[in-house]
Amino acid sequence: MPAMDQDKAAPYCLALRRALAANVRRLRSARGWSQEVLAFESGLHRTFVAHVERAARNISLDNIARLAVALEVTAPDLLQVPPRDAEIVNPAA
Amino acid sequence: MPAMDQDKAAPYCLALRRALAANVRRLRSARGWSQEVLAFESGLHRTFVAHVERAARNISLDNIARLAVALEVTAPDLLQVPPRDAEIVNPAA
Repeated sequence: MPAMDQDKAAPYCLALRRALAANVRRLRSARGWSQEVLAFESGLHRTFVAHVERAARNISLDNIARLAVALEVTAPDLLQVPPRDAEIVNPAA
Repeated sequence: MPAMDQDKAAPYCLALRRALAANVRRLRSARGWSQEVLAFESGLHRTFVAHVERAARNISLDNIARLAVALEVTAPDLLQVPPRDAEIVNPAA
């Protein structure tokens, strides 16, 4: 894969990872769930959930779906970038 | 990972892959781009793009970001499930 095109998308890659991390943490906390409980409910490993919440993981679409189902939201909900960050990196802004 | 929880999310996993496939195909065609052009613009391989458009690939978040940037939409835009399918599988419906 050409490095040039990957660089172009790098800020949005990071923004999406951070948005997912913040949204998962917020929705999990709102339910009073620990990372262990979310891991159990989504069928994922606790350390995997911890990595997602630190934006340290390039998660797959199927695992985004598992988190969404466990948290009773949609995948697009989980990937909403906060408005301030969106001004900087959102390609459609 | 427990099989039970994966099964619970399986319909939504499939719906998301299909939604992404349909949205990428629609947006690419609207620009008059071949899969080769989209591959070039997103820094991905042509066969990878072809697999995504056949819902045959568990794509990563970073690669969703690359497609979104190339197509000038957001990642949530790419993952919008059509209303009829959403009634069946959308966990937040």
